[in-house]
Amino acid sequence: MAKIIVKTERYSYPITIDTGLIHNLASFLPLKANDQVMLVTNQTLAPLYLKSLLITLEGNGIKVDQVVLPDGEQYKSLTGLEQIFAALSEKFHGRDTTLIALGGGVIGDLTGFAAACYQRGVRFIQVPTTLLAQVDAAIGGKTAINHAMSKNMIGAFHQPISVVIDLDFLQTLPKSEFISGLAEVIKYAIALDSDFFVWLENNIEDLLARDTTALRYCIRRCCELKAGIVAIDEREENGQRALLNLGHTYGHAIEVAMGYGTWSHGQAVAAGMVMAAETAKLLGQFATADIERIKVLLLRAGLPTHGPDTMTAESYLPYMQRDKKVLAGELRLILPTGIGQSEIRSGIPSHIVIKAIKHSQIS
Amino acid sequence: MAKIIVKTERYSYPITIDTGLIHNLASFLPLKANDQVMLVTNQTLAPLYLKSLLITLEGNGIKVDQVVLPDGEQYKSLTGLEQIFAALSEKFHGRDTTLIALGGGVIGDLTGFAAACYQRGVRFIQVPTTLLAQVDAAIGGKTAINHAMSKNMIGAFHQPISVVIDLDFLQTLPKSEFISGLAEVIKYAIALDSDFFVWLENNIEDLLARDTTALRYCIRRCCELKAGIVAIDEREENGQRALLNLGHTYGHAIEVAMGYGTWSHGQAVAAGMVMAAETAKLLGQFATADIERIKVLLLRAGLPTHGPDTMTAESYLPYMQRDKKVLAGELRLILPTGIGQSEIRSGIPSHIVIKAIKHSQIS
Ligand SMILES: NC(=O)c1ccc[n+]([C@@H]2O[C@H](COP(=O)([O-])OP(=O)(O)OC[C@H]3O[C@@H](n4cnc5c(N)ncnc54)[C@H](O)[C@@H]3O)[C@@H](O)[C@H]2O)c1
Ligand SMILES: NC(=O)c1ccc[n+]([C@@H]2O[C@H](COP(=O)([O-])OP(=O)(O)OC[C@H]3O[C@@H](n4cnc5c(N)ncnc54)[C@H](O)[C@@H]3O)[C@@H](O)[C@H]2O)c1
Ligand SMILES: [Zn+2]
Ligand SMILES: [Zn+2]
Repeated sequence: MAKIIVKTERYSYPITIDTGLIHNLASFLPLKANDQVMLVTNQTLAPLYLKSLLITLEGNGIKVDQVVLPDGEQYKSLTGLEQIFAALSEKFHGRDTTLIALGGGVIGDLTGFAAACYQRGVRFIQVPTTLLAQVDAAIGGKTAINHAMSKNMIGAFHQPISVVIDLDFLQTLPKSEFISGLAEVIKYAIALDSDFFVWLENNIEDLLARDTTALRYCIRRCCELKAGIVAIDEREENGQRALLNLGHTYGHAIEVAMGYGTWSHGQAVAAGMVMAAETAKLLGQFATADIERIKVLLLRAGLPTHGPDTMTAESYLPYMQRDKKVLAGELRLILPTGIGQSEIRSGIPSHIVIKAIKHSQIS
Repeated sequence: MAKIIVKTERYSYPITIDTGLIHNLASFLPLKANDQVMLVTNQTLAPLYLKSLLITLEGNGIKVDQVVLPDGEQYKSLTGLEQIFAALSEKFHGRDTTLIALGGGVIGDLTGFAAACYQRGVRFIQVPTTLLAQVDAAIGGKTAINHAMSKNMIGAFHQPISVVIDLDFLQTLPKSEFISGLAEVIKYAIALDSDFFVWLENNIEDLLARDTTALRYCIRRCCELKAGIVAIDEREENGQRALLNLGHTYGHAIEVAMGYGTWSHGQAVAAGMVMAAETAKLLGQFATADIERIKVLLLRAGLPTHGPDTMTAESYLPYMQRDKKVLAGELRLILPTGIGQSEIRSGIPSHIVIKAIKHSQIS
């Protein structure tokens, strides 16, 4: 069992990584007999894991109410939120209640935001079930819902009191979701840790086979990296946390232009990381050989290395920056400065970005 | 001009108290030319003050967009929130925007919560226009909206960057609203400051005449008291901030049982404070003479000293505590221990509370 401590402004909390965790009340400390819990999950996960988790909690005297939402990003919204508030209110949950999010990033972000707002903030525990949520979404207290066309527009920084990562969940995760999560894993390596990149080059097949030993190391390393970033930049104020958005600005353009869901988030981020590396290369700060290493690893993971053929390089720009700076022809982007290191760069001319996207498309 | 500094966990901010503040950009520092602002107000206040405020802001090069909501507590809701988010999104406001709440507690609580959630938190300035908001709601960062039947069920602790208290606003406030605010003023005195209680005994007529000198002192003193409490208990965690709920648990029963709006909040709190004093007296910690002083002051302020005749003492209990402790016959209440001091007391038998309410009714 691995334990990682996330240090934040107001308190510290543990990430626990192991198999079989949902069968053991100790995983859910400080929960104890007679505590009141609202468990939030979705209709895909409920038949797989709800019963086991209930046996662990109720078997130990914890009073559990539930909200089982339909599956889908569209429930990470005011609609989903209302359902959680209605249940909390109906069952008379007070300020001492604890919410548990059993699910991927959708359930985690929604439940976390509900916990942030209910009675101005109650405790919550993340029990992430996707690879993306285990290495990224469940850690660090960014919670949010979508509004109209804007993703994550309404949210809060609200830290969980514990993150319970049961590796067994990943065995039932659809392959496409698993691969999408691998894009974020590779992102950590490119942005922050060259040794981890080498480890991934050596172990990507074991990961794809969902070998428990490989998963355990990989998830642990990602969690350590994220915890390190959160400790120094909890609220995305000093630029450190922004490094975790490597590839995301380009990828965002793909997701929005193609319509959300057409390309998975991981596919879009994978292509976006190659574009970021190509941009860095044009700015004279990234080697061609390292772009090749990135592309090879992405391909071995089952991820794309360039954007959709139907998108011209020029068509990315309007989606890449919401504010007016992009109109003045300058962008602010996260760029790698080598494998394992990255930085925020402002004032990047848009023609460089267009050229970089073109390079990624033809090579 | 009075300036009071509110010290909170993450930063300190000023409360500025004076006449004529909305005509002076300096009141709104750190706002400066080219900043983007979303001004939120309601249809009652817009014709009175919006134009003046716009002249001050736009005349100094600040880019202002507006949301003018209908007047009423029912817009302190997801509906009102959606309108603010829609405007922010439509006008491309980014993380560097500033929301300004021009209004009473309704606009302040709603706008503050919108600021807490929009892009996980943006800056906001409180410009309170009611006595209640100037002495209480606008200070200390408690923001919230109502949900279904529950008041303030969804919210956040999110501090403003500045509170601008222009005394001129109070000249147009309806008398009933002014008197309702006086109940909170008297609350501060009973709960925290016996000298201030004496000052109120000596100056209540000047206050009722809305004399600027009296208002200035009174509001300043309340703000100092609230700032002191917020500094030691920002998130209502150690019991200090709860003292400001003196009279509110009893008052809440009146407001809910009679239907919100039938009794004003201030009227309900006034009656509730007498009930709290009667309870304290039954517990042997409050003198009869002090109950008389409280009642005389409330009456001079135009406030009631007992609850509605249609409510029996027994009928208060189900509304006084949401959780199950009340069923076990024990309550947790804020009680005065003298004029100018108060405490939280747990385990108060419900028969004592019933007797105290009866005493307030007959005397
Ligand atoms: N808060 C953050 O810091 C952060 C970071 C990254 C992403 N996110 C958010 O996370 C969301 C995406 O999360 P996601 O990729 O986990 O998607 P998701 O939560 O929608 O899960 C993907 C799919 O897999 C299913 N599923 C989940 N676990 C399963 C399991 N163990 N077995 C079988 N099926 C399973 C889900 O029901 C769903 O259909 C987005 O809304 C994104 O904005 C948040
Ligand atoms: N956040 C806190 O700490 C806190 C504390 C106390 C109360 N509150 C909240 O505050 C709200 C009540 O606030 P309120 O009493 O200010 O009510 P309000 O905001 O509804 O204002 C009362 C009425 O007076 C009108 N008005 C306001 N200023 C005026 C002016 N200068 N001239 C003429 N008319 C004016 C308003 O349009 C409204 O009709 C409640 O929702 C309550 O929950 C919050
Ligand atoms: Zn991502
Ligand atoms: Zn009040």
